[in-house]
Amino acid sequence: MIDKANQHQNPTPALGKSTHPPKSWRTWLIGRPLHTADAPHQTIGKLVGLAVFASDALSSTAYATQEMLMILAIAGTAAFHYSLPIAMGIVALLAILTLSYEQTIHAYPNGGGAYIVARDNLGNLPALIAGAALLTDYILTVSVSISSGIAQIVSAYPALYGLRIEIAVFMVFFIMLINLRGVKESGATFAIPTYFFLAMMFLTVGEGLVKVLMGNLGTVVNPPHMELIDLPQPISFFLILRAFSNGTSAVTGVEAISNGITAFKEPRSKNAGQTLIWMSVILGSLMLAITFLAYSMGAVPSETETIISQIARTVFNGTGLLYFLMITATTVILVMAANTAFADFPRLGALISQDGYLPRQFSYRGSRLVYSRGIVALAVIASLLIILFKASVTNLIPLYAIGVFLSFSLSQFGMAHRWWKSGQLKPGEEKQEPGSVVRHEKSWLVKMLINGFGGLTTFVVMIVFAITKFTDGAWIIIVLTPLLVIAFEAIHAHYKNVARQLSLDAYDNPPQLKADHVIIMLGGVHKSSLASLQYARTLSDDVRALHVSIDPEDTRRIAAKWEKWGGGVPLVILESPYRLFIEPVLDYIEQLDQQREPGEVITIVVPQFITSRWLNFLHARTADTLRKVLLAKENVVIIEVPYRITEPYGLPAQHG
Amino acid sequence: MIDKANQHQNPTPALGKSTHPPKSWRTWLIGRPLHTADAPHQTIGKLVGLAVFASDALSSTAYATQEMLMILAIAGTAAFHYSLPIAMGIVALLAILTLSYEQTIHAYPNGGGAYIVARDNLGNLPALIAGAALLTDYILTVSVSISSGIAQIVSAYPALYGLRIEIAVFMVFFIMLINLRGVKESGATFAIPTYFFLAMMFLTVGEGLVKVLMGNLGTVVNPPHMELIDLPQPISFFLILRAFSNGTSAVTGVEAISNGITAFKEPRSKNAGQTLIWMSVILGSLMLAITFLAYSMGAVPSETETIISQIARTVFNGTGLLYFLMITATTVILVMAANTAFADFPRLGALISQDGYLPRQFSYRGSRLVYSRGIVALAVIASLLIILFKASVTNLIPLYAIGVFLSFSLSQFGMAHRWWKSGQLKPGEEKQEPGSVVRHEKSWLVKMLINGFGGLTTFVVMIVFAITKFTDGAWIIIVLTPLLVIAFEAIHAHYKNVARQLSLDAYDNPPQLKADHVIIMLGGVHKSSLASLQYARTLSDDVRALHVSIDPEDTRRIAAKWEKWGGGVPLVILESPYRLFIEPVLDYIEQLDQQREPGEVITIVVPQFITSRWLNFLHARTADTLRKVLLAKENVVIIEVPYRITEPYGLPAQHG
Repeated sequence: MIDKANQHQNPTPALGKSTHPPKSWRTWLIGRPLHTADAPHQTIGKLVGLAVFASDALSSTAYATQEMLMILAIAGTAAFHYSLPIAMGIVALLAILTLSYEQTIHAYPNGGGAYIVARDNLGNLPALIAGAALLTDYILTVSVSISSGIAQIVSAYPALYGLRIEIAVFMVFFIMLINLRGVKESGATFAIPTYFFLAMMFLTVGEGLVKVLMGNLGTVVNPPHMELIDLPQPISFFLILRAFSNGTSAVTGVEAISNGITAFKEPRSKNAGQTLIWMSVILGSLMLAITFLAYSMGAVPSETETIISQIARTVFNGTGLLYFLMITATTVILVMAANTAFADFPRLGALISQDGYLPRQFSYRGSRLVYSRGIVALAVIASLLIILFKASVTNLIPLYAIGVFLSFSLSQFGMAHRWWKSGQLKPGEEKQEPGSVVRHEKSWLVKMLINGFGGLTTFVVMIVFAITKFTDGAWIIIVLTPLLVIAFEAIHAHYKNVARQLSLDAYDNPPQLKADHVIIMLGGVHKSSLASLQYARTLSDDVRALHVSIDPEDTRRIAAKWEKWGGGVPLVILESPYRLFIEPVLDYIEQLDQQREPGEVITIVVPQFITSRWLNFLHARTADTLRKVLLAKENVVIIEVPYRITEPYGLPAQHG
Repeated sequence: MIDKANQHQNPTPALGKSTHPPKSWRTWLIGRPLHTADAPHQTIGKLVGLAVFASDALSSTAYATQEMLMILAIAGTAAFHYSLPIAMGIVALLAILTLSYEQTIHAYPNGGGAYIVARDNLGNLPALIAGAALLTDYILTVSVSISSGIAQIVSAYPALYGLRIEIAVFMVFFIMLINLRGVKESGATFAIPTYFFLAMMFLTVGEGLVKVLMGNLGTVVNPPHMELIDLPQPISFFLILRAFSNGTSAVTGVEAISNGITAFKEPRSKNAGQTLIWMSVILGSLMLAITFLAYSMGAVPSETETIISQIARTVFNGTGLLYFLMITATTVILVMAANTAFADFPRLGALISQDGYLPRQFSYRGSRLVYSRGIVALAVIASLLIILFKASVTNLIPLYAIGVFLSFSLSQFGMAHRWWKSGQLKPGEEKQEPGSVVRHEKSWLVKMLINGFGGLTTFVVMIVFAITKFTDGAWIIIVLTPLLVIAFEAIHAHYKNVARQLSLDAYDNPPQLKADHVIIMLGGVHKSSLASLQYARTLSDDVRALHVSIDPEDTRRIAAKWEKWGGGVPLVILESPYRLFIEPVLDYIEQLDQQREPGEVITIVVPQFITSRWLNFLHARTADTLRKVLLAKENVVIIEVPYRITEPYGLPAQHG
């Protein structure tokens, strides 16, 4: 007899093992499991924060200029002199965004991604649109950054061109593993390479600018073959807008910090805000410098050699050590950019999932306190995109920036609306809004205008992007985003429906369920079915055994054995001339169900003999199928009485 | 209350629907289900029998000569004059085999494949070796025949060369579908094309021989580029043996009839025997004629144009209508050869499965009375081989004939042993041997010598083949066959172990199982868990609820609700700081298990709320995982109390 008193109402049972972390091959791959209580300690400072969150934005300097030139090239190399003014426009856009997001970071110290800001200030639908836009954006960040990283490698080692897709997919899964280990280790792992990249970048750009001043920069030796992605055409305003659109890929990633504020050490907002400003200053200067140098030395866009590679070998007079260090640094920062998405995508997925718009599994933390399912989903989808678009940045870029700018606009319009509400309050007054507290702020009008202008600018950029890139691939995102929103709403409707039907509100008379009618599924008469028989007889007086007859010879043998062992329990035989098993049983249950009194329950006892799961394929497992089908019926309870078969070869049993 | 008397001991219940055939997309694809009673009617006459079973053997004339020349070409075209003597040797081998198998067919009217003959007369191990050899042989028949069929198509339409693998795999699945419909329809579908092939073949060969006699045959115009599969070397005895080995692929398929005797109309043995002799005569003549013509007109072996294509366009003076009819007929007969394997592989699989050496599912007949699983398995494996070996007959042929000749030898040694036993009996006497009755036969010595000589010949051929083709791919089969035999034995050991452990022999005191301790798994307090609670309370007085605490907030809410709705059933809370669910439950059950009295049973009640299976991915399904894990434990019974959630969008429920 079990000592019951010992077990009841025991909130912290001395049950030993469950409080110890489990060990397995996963431990080796992603590290020892972390205790839930460890969660708050996993935060980072400004220096590491810049490394983790700014890599997306900084790394886009590796391809933004190149993709801008890719468009201008359609109008011939003479059109390249538009590149510097376009780059300046992009830097202006960056400045507006930075100002705007700095305000967001202080207003939302718990993480003010576009999803949260839109949800709190504009409502559910805009929030879901922002959510859909951001999720696709994060996926593309991974695909684009890794593809560009591969392009750098191929510039240095052209022999690897044929393997670029394989290398890209391998890299995505490598980053996935790092992220499954948790954010703190990512920070430490990634800080050194980010600063290595910045050092190499400043060295290259600095050396280049000095050479320009001294007048001895020269031009690119043996430039790659310039590729045209369209038929040649004269320069036009539309073409300039297309080039600008491609160039805006430089500002993607600016929002990363505002989503990840909670990862920063206290004071969070201040640290995050300063990191944002530093990041923008570095990004803007690099964008201008790279574009200027590329133009000065006559670099041309090409799939076989990147602009960065051309700049580096021209500045350093050939492919020596510094060239290789620069290429390595660029590749590594691009890989880390993908890592930014691996921090943000699962976090946003968990947020949307907690609101009930994505499968709940996305909000479960894995053994290392990270949202493992989101991390794995991101890796899989990004890899698929890389394979589909052949790891080409030029192919992927038209899908990229729409989502970014859509979420930028929604976020900033949300902030503008929030400042307007702030302006309606009296000085010192504060008001609880859904999600956050709105306080009166003296400078609310200026702040509203800044965010409103930012929102308007990014909205216009998005429209420009959608129009100029529509046929190149932007249409995919324009179609996909509403579909994602519909999927979110459908998932939400399902969860609400389940919750409503399970709810105990206004439920005062639970049904009195018991085993009224018991049926034993009889495949054969043996120890396993006898165990089920013994159990079934303790449940009810109305017990019968059911056998589906496929082979009459078999059936005769079973009936005879049942006569001896069945203990008087009647045997029902269902003929199955079409050798079906499930259907006759279903029909029989259906008939019983119709004769049933209201409230009565039919209990099906399924004898299960359990062998090693490695040998499951040797058994037809009809019991499993039957169980699945019958579970869907109302008023049917399934009982499985296992009978364990031991394996002589030391094979593991059903589990572990 | 259900009327019990009405249901009991009812061997043919008037339960309506289960005796009607089910309808679905499968019905459209493979035809309406057939009643078990329809089985014996599915037999065929000699003409149709020749079409169904001889196509394998006859079709090998499409590649045997070519593969022979492929080897001789290594020693230069001058070596081609060895082709006719080699072909004669192969025809002699064919004659020996025919004589030998004719005896088998009469001794084994219920189907005397190598597996059965070896099992009855030599024992289990030789039978399993023969079975493994035959199964691999059938798979290769499909791969080789379809690949050769594609080679004919490519000869006529070289543009299709790039698509040959895709077309081949498509064809395999097309034949699979035809076979899933059942053997009678295969017969009808395939009789016309076989005779069309024979007509075209005799026309081509006849016209060719007449032209040789008239002296106006000429040579192949624009012969394809002759390919060498090895470095050139002088002619040697070893090379002649290699060519002979390749040529023996012509006699593969001779055993098909002896395996398929039961498909013939009565008198089975007579009909099957006559069909065999007709088949061999046709096969032998064609082999000699094709080899002679190929030599006479200077045809050369090549992957881009088959020998058959070269003969046809030379005989018919170009690629006119008759040429295309000949190519079509050859392609079609090769496709049908694959069909032979689709008749024999599943039948042999079912036989071995009934003996307990293959998963039992292979002996279940599908809705159209065919062994569906064997048919599907054959299609899948043969397609994989086609993909791996790039649909090239020359690549596949070294794997092909070893299995055939191994099974030939075992079958004939088995027969020889049987005649020897027959000779030990007195005239008129008969003796029951395992599987069949052995009678005294007057001419037992002659028959024994015939079968013994046949066995010896094929054994020598197998050794020659294994040695000359070892490095070309024969080693794969030499390694695979013993592995298959080991797998057969392992499967058998498993089934025997299960049967022994389940057996009721010497079992006189069944345990008295009942729900001694009942545990309700509590994820939340709602209608579904209350349904489980109600059911559980009728089972035992020792009922408790178990909750794994991952989020303390959640746990507090659940405990409070349980206070109100739990009806006094105690709640056990397991802390899970590592956010694991299964492991703490397992630990708890483990501890309970140790405190349990011998013979007591722990019953776990799992509340299951059931949504549409299309939406299953939205729920974590931890209940399913838990069930699987707990099923493996002894003395644990699982009860699932379903609570069905209706879907508002008319989505189908868990099943149909």
